[in-house]
Amino acid sequence: MGFFDRLGDRIEQTDSMLCVGLDPDTDRLPSHLDGFDLPRWAFNRRIIDATHDLVAAYKPNAAFYEDADGWRSLEETIAYAHGKDVPVILDAKRADIGNTTRQYARQLDRVDAITVNPYLGRDAIEPFLQRSDAGVFVLCRTTNPGASDVQELALAEGDQLYERVATLADLWNQRNNIGLVVGATTPDELEAVRDLVPELPFLVPGVGAQGGDVEAAVTYGCVDGVGLINASRSVIFAGEGETFDKAARSAAKRLRDRLNEYR
Amino acid sequence: MGFFDRLGDRIEQTDSMLCVGLDPDTDRLPSHLDGFDLPRWAFNRRIIDATHDLVAAYKPNAAFYEDADGWRSLEETIAYAHGKDVPVILDAKRADIGNTTRQYARQLDRVDAITVNPYLGRDAIEPFLQRSDAGVFVLCRTTNPGASDVQELALAEGDQLYERVATLADLWNQRNNIGLVVGATTPDELEAVRDLVPELPFLVPGVGAQGGDVEAAVTYGCVDGVGLINASRSVIFAGEGETFDKAARSAAKRLRDRLNEYR
Repeated sequence: MGFFDRLGDRIEQTDSMLCVGLDPDTDRLPSHLDGFDLPRWAFNRRIIDATHDLVAAYKPNAAFYEDADGWRSLEETIAYAHGKDVPVILDAKRADIGNTTRQYARQLDRVDAITVNPYLGRDAIEPFLQRSDAGVFVLCRTTNPGASDVQELALAEGDQLYERVATLADLWNQRNNIGLVVGATTPDELEAVRDLVPELPFLVPGVGAQGGDVEAAVTYGCVDGVGLINASRSVIFAGEGETFDKAARSAAKRLRDRLNEYR
Repeated sequence: MGFFDRLGDRIEQTDSMLCVGLDPDTDRLPSHLDGFDLPRWAFNRRIIDATHDLVAAYKPNAAFYEDADGWRSLEETIAYAHGKDVPVILDAKRADIGNTTRQYARQLDRVDAITVNPYLGRDAIEPFLQRSDAGVFVLCRTTNPGASDVQELALAEGDQLYERVATLADLWNQRNNIGLVVGATTPDELEAVRDLVPELPFLVPGVGAQGGDVEAAVTYGCVDGVGLINASRSVIFAGEGETFDKAARSAAKRLRDRLNEYR
């Protein structure tokens, strides 16, 4: 059973298309977790305990785990989320060449899906795509101000680069395991990409701390009810101190319900 | 003193523009290293012992270290290379947005330079660029067959995407700490990029196992004697068994000398 079929079941089961980004910035962890061997894992465990019934998926960003203790924290986090039946998307934005990208693709032994960067072309993400049971979200349109520098470049054939990436990804989608990352901070572009690729589910970041358009995210993010809207900081750092997990639950529930208004 | 100044001194000192990729594929490590706590680190230490006087820099690719033991191996490797006065470039091809890419940029506390992916635009790599003493190699033209899928797209203004990335990187180079990754497998394109950006040093992969053009790599890779030609597998896996390090030394020496014919 492919990733998007499993994700569809999970979304139906939990009545939620919310994806929560597990980005345990060590500068922002509550101080009562300092004494733990792995504070990031201690933080994530509490977030998972508090929110797992409200979320369709978790999305740890690899940037927050790039050291030895970080990878231990990430491994524990993934296993724990799986123990609660929540799929995990590794937000890694990887891509490399040949034997190197095959090495990166081994991360799909651990997680259910991954994000990849299209700049190196199809063969750089092919080892990810070959895992037909895993999901591969190709970066299309990101939410940062500088995204326009490259993604909005006008191509000779009249489209913009991010639109071409969308159509290329659609072409590469021979195993029905590709989705796109398309930010909610640009609702018109969400609609434009949806028109181009009616069959690709989106992972939509930017509705939380970045203030993106929730209605557009839900309306254009889904295909047959499958799609994810991500929030990271606005959920996991919704509160401070010893009750941070309760605050995270409230924030997750509010956002889940808000998303459901438009589903 | 900026990275490229330090690198220039190092190249002069060692009479070498060779960069060796430390990519310890666990499927290819000599079996006598199996018993070590960290076989990848044991492998790298022997490679460094055997080659450090012949190389301008080492370039570990992050893909080969993405687990808890991997990061420990990488940390030991970086410290050991630094102990031999060899600069280290982390081949990570990273880029993300806002707080996440700031997190990735912390890797520059450990290493001397890093490779980044341009698809997300300038602000995604700005936290790397702000480390004015560190080097930032922007992916421009990669050596894989599928590189043409995206990098060669024709833009409305007449140039190709990889050419635009080169000129953008040149524009972003306000601290003299940007270089470009341009593959040796496409000598004409090496020349074209050199013409576009006469002042950016190149990191040129592809002359080893991938069979790229050595003369073009050296001729177009350097600016005022500063530039790096990388080989990974053709050096570190030049031999097998217990004398793999001697074989690596011979391969490194041969390639260093071959590069010097064109300098």
